[in-house]
Amino acid sequence: MASGAGPEIERLMALLSKLPGLGPRSARRAALALLKKREQLLIPLTAAMQDAAERVTSCHICGALSTRDPCATCADPTRDAAMICVVEEDSALWAMERVGAFSGRYHVLGGLLSALDGVRPEDLRLSGLMQRVSSGGVEELVMALPATVEGQTTAHYIADRVKPLAPEVTITHLARGVPVGGELDWLDDGTIAHAFKSRR
Amino acid sequence: MASGAGPEIERLMALLSKLPGLGPRSARRAALALLKKREQLLIPLTAAMQDAAERVTSCHICGALSTRDPCATCADPTRDAAMICVVEEDSALWAMERVGAFSGRYHVLGGLLSALDGVRPEDLRLSGLMQRVSSGGVEELVMALPATVEGQTTAHYIADRVKPLAPEVTITHLARGVPVGGELDWLDDGTIAHAFKSRR
Repeated sequence: MASGAGPEIERLMALLSKLPGLGPRSARRAALALLKKREQLLIPLTAAMQDAAERVTSCHICGALSTRDPCATCADPTRDAAMICVVEEDSALWAMERVGAFSGRYHVLGGLLSALDGVRPEDLRLSGLMQRVSSGGVEELVMALPATVEGQTTAHYIADRVKPLAPEVTITHLARGVPVGGELDWLDDGTIAHAFKSRR
Repeated sequence: MASGAGPEIERLMALLSKLPGLGPRSARRAALALLKKREQLLIPLTAAMQDAAERVTSCHICGALSTRDPCATCADPTRDAAMICVVEEDSALWAMERVGAFSGRYHVLGGLLSALDGVRPEDLRLSGLMQRVSSGGVEELVMALPATVEGQTTAHYIADRVKPLAPEVTITHLARGVPVGGELDWLDDGTIAHAFKSRR
């Protein structure tokens, strides 16, 4: 990315371009915005990143990113410990929390099983989940995993391992169907077929 | 942006969403990527930003962002001091340098005149440009400004001020026409009309 901007600015651009959603061009724009808004953006963002690098850790119970261990959700006695929502990543946990429909606990797998990418069960936060389930008190495991091959494979794998360990635990899945505001014309056939079969 | 991620992570997301091209959703993805790639991304990017905040300044001659003052271009005796390329922002300077077709010096205005946004001549790096032009030795001023109303207004304003000050200076503009690889069908009428009139 030779830009004539000097090695320091080029290094900044090169690192910014590694962020998801930023290519070389948007990384240059981001670098320029940072350098032009030193006081309002560059300095506070640097401080926030330093703070995050030093203080953010993973909750030893659910695996969520947090500055506290256990995290706020695991430490909150008002949240239902009988329900565990299994998610792929923190972003899914954040989405569930924004919706505010779930009042139980979480378990962040940190990925999905994938033969293609070589992700095996031992690469995920699975032993901790099995421990939580087998230690009793859990009534429902909500699989909030993506509706992809990897997501469904992972959900099946977890169900297969939970059943012999804790047969009393109910395993549920997020409903499949037409998204709110979804035009039938724009949906794939699989979603429409699923939504038709599950009509109520 | 309530996400249940804790105030430190939320602050990181809020600041990332101020970068150009990042909305709330992509800022969340970027924050997650940073936190998951602590060693490869978060720590080096924080260091690069700190370095930039401490060391990057504006060249007192041309206004370009640089860790040196005068900047590498202004300090380079092999670059033609008789040609000055006038650009809106550093991003345009970087684009010109990537192309490598220009071997003169630059002048970064830091914006464009705009009645709508209330940008007046004194808000731009214009007095420095007039000083450079009137101190002699400049033969050509290349206006590499955007082909927008603001860009063209600014170019006219500069030409009007340069003429009485240094009548010997030639003022040129980047050619307008069909971009390389451009399909006529996708171009606006103004560009096509311009390209037709300037055919050769």
